[in-house]
Amino acid sequence: MLATIIHGERDVRLEEVPDPVLSTGGDAIVRVVATCVCGSDLWPYRGVTPTSQPRRIGHEFVGVVEAVGPEVATIEPGDFVIAPFYDCDMTCVNCENGVSASCLHGGWWGADDRSGAFADGGQGQKVRVPHADGSLVATPEYPREELIPSLLALSDVMGTGHHAAVSAGVRPGSTVVVVGDGAVGLCAVLASARLGASRIVAMSRHESRQALAREFGATDIVAERGDAGVAAVKGLLDGIGADCVLEAVGTKESMDQAIRSCRPGGMVGYVGVPNGGPELPVRPLFASNVGVNGGFAPVRNYVEELLRDVWSGAIEPGRVFDLQVPLSDIAEAYAAMDERRAIKALVRP
Amino acid sequence: MLATIIHGERDVRLEEVPDPVLSTGGDAIVRVVATCVCGSDLWPYRGVTPTSQPRRIGHEFVGVVEAVGPEVATIEPGDFVIAPFYDCDMTCVNCENGVSASCLHGGWWGADDRSGAFADGGQGQKVRVPHADGSLVATPEYPREELIPSLLALSDVMGTGHHAAVSAGVRPGSTVVVVGDGAVGLCAVLASARLGASRIVAMSRHESRQALAREFGATDIVAERGDAGVAAVKGLLDGIGADCVLEAVGTKESMDQAIRSCRPGGMVGYVGVPNGGPELPVRPLFASNVGVNGGFAPVRNYVEELLRDVWSGAIEPGRVFDLQVPLSDIAEAYAAMDERRAIKALVRP
Repeated sequence: MLATIIHGERDVRLEEVPDPVLSTGGDAIVRVVATCVCGSDLWPYRGVTPTSQPRRIGHEFVGVVEAVGPEVATIEPGDFVIAPFYDCDMTCVNCENGVSASCLHGGWWGADDRSGAFADGGQGQKVRVPHADGSLVATPEYPREELIPSLLALSDVMGTGHHAAVSAGVRPGSTVVVVGDGAVGLCAVLASARLGASRIVAMSRHESRQALAREFGATDIVAERGDAGVAAVKGLLDGIGADCVLEAVGTKESMDQAIRSCRPGGMVGYVGVPNGGPELPVRPLFASNVGVNGGFAPVRNYVEELLRDVWSGAIEPGRVFDLQVPLSDIAEAYAAMDERRAIKALVRP
Repeated sequence: MLATIIHGERDVRLEEVPDPVLSTGGDAIVRVVATCVCGSDLWPYRGVTPTSQPRRIGHEFVGVVEAVGPEVATIEPGDFVIAPFYDCDMTCVNCENGVSASCLHGGWWGADDRSGAFADGGQGQKVRVPHADGSLVATPEYPREELIPSLLALSDVMGTGHHAAVSAGVRPGSTVVVVGDGAVGLCAVLASARLGASRIVAMSRHESRQALAREFGATDIVAERGDAGVAAVKGLLDGIGADCVLEAVGTKESMDQAIRSCRPGGMVGYVGVPNGGPELPVRPLFASNVGVNGGFAPVRNYVEELLRDVWSGAIEPGRVFDLQVPLSDIAEAYAAMDERRAIKALVRP
């Protein structure tokens, strides 16, 4: 089959690789119907994270089950399934605590599972899923074509935006600031609206992203950053800042922006993978009782809840995909996101 | 009147100072019935925080109202009152949000208020309270003598321990670890038990404090620290750590202990004033979805709720006072706490 291999900085190639095979009894083979490029894939692509040797890449996909191992109980060949951006069993104590991204037996796509069998990356024609019963959620029936982008968004970005909102404690009536206007930030706006926030301030300087943020439920846009951004946010929110600030970037600057946009006693929900490891400044947090909560989003725990609203058409997170390319053009999908010509690229094998 | 003045390292003296006078219309004069020494008072006492010039010290007190300004509506001369460790109006947006320690118009004892009139420190015979209606809570009647230590604990330590528990989200059935066996840590144990925690692990190496922790509701004691402490905690709690970890010390080591004792997806509630500013390590927090929440405890917001249980005898936080001295022996109160001969010293003017 064909799969995407990253060789180094700005060098991703579609190459022939061995077809996946069932190995562990509880696994499944999924034929990928749609995959995409994640903001975090751009780190190795840009060389921020070095690539020491060619490796599989990709971790977001939806598809059709082709085969299952003998121990698989809930998934059948022919099912259309959503996979989270990691593998998990949904039976360990962390999964049961709602933190499936810390599954005691799970792992990451494009790497060996705990038994030593390979789990393919998502940007290819097929993927072997180690814990099929845990990781995969089947849709009620084969989806209409127009639902596929929003179903794919449940694999990562929508669940991650939702996790930012949940981590910050967004509830009906909350005031919210979202730092970051990438696909996750936009999904965080949508998640906040879905949870009943009364005021959602999107910090964005890009006109097309501002427009989508408004369609997703943003009530206000702040284009300024730094001190001016903080002043603008406080000017909109009682002079004190937001109840909940959702950080969806992961840099020191964005976290600083988030903390300073939060009112005393408020909470920052952060899902931007810390890029270079900004440390959190404990003294200003302590002085203002601003909390910080978040991390790798346990998107698998959220799939059922969010799927209901995607299936009914109540939310359309798939609108963050503003470019669609065939798998053969995977390099263009990366380039378009790298150059910010696309918010997020959907890729069809 | 007599009041405590800190002159420098290990040099506190009782000295004659001017009697306080009503100044701003909304203030009150309180005759102090009981005060105490806070762990944070030991910082200037030990010279960790330099004392550039002699100044008033103390911020925890209960007493009897002697006089009130013409604008005071809810407090009357003769009332027995509890003061929080700061002054606040309870009408600003931060107070209404439950974060009275960030009152927009309040301030700290032993300093000028926003109008420029002086608010005395708590370790003296009398205190001028700038926002009497906001800051002071009157008890239903003059308390029995044996209730006074527990009422005084509502001025800081019990409300602060409760804030750690609230910040960490302690609820019925939670598993809890408390890092720190000072008065606040012990009150955090008591607060966790009061909120229904099913398992409370107190990290303590001191036999008398272990005993009080058990009486306050600790189900387990861990005497080890560092790696051994983390291993012992995980051994008691499903191999993963606690739902909620309450940090009541404020050093880099104690925060590290707290974070590593927390399960994936759990929350650290911290109330130990960061001593020297340990930064929070964002990458391990992100990887495990451990949140950090807390700060200066808004104890005034908790007084009514906790007072009911103190008044009924359901909780006795005043048991953290294991030394009582007259105000004339204030220097001994400091020395006993500095030398860890006492958990906390109660001082009677």
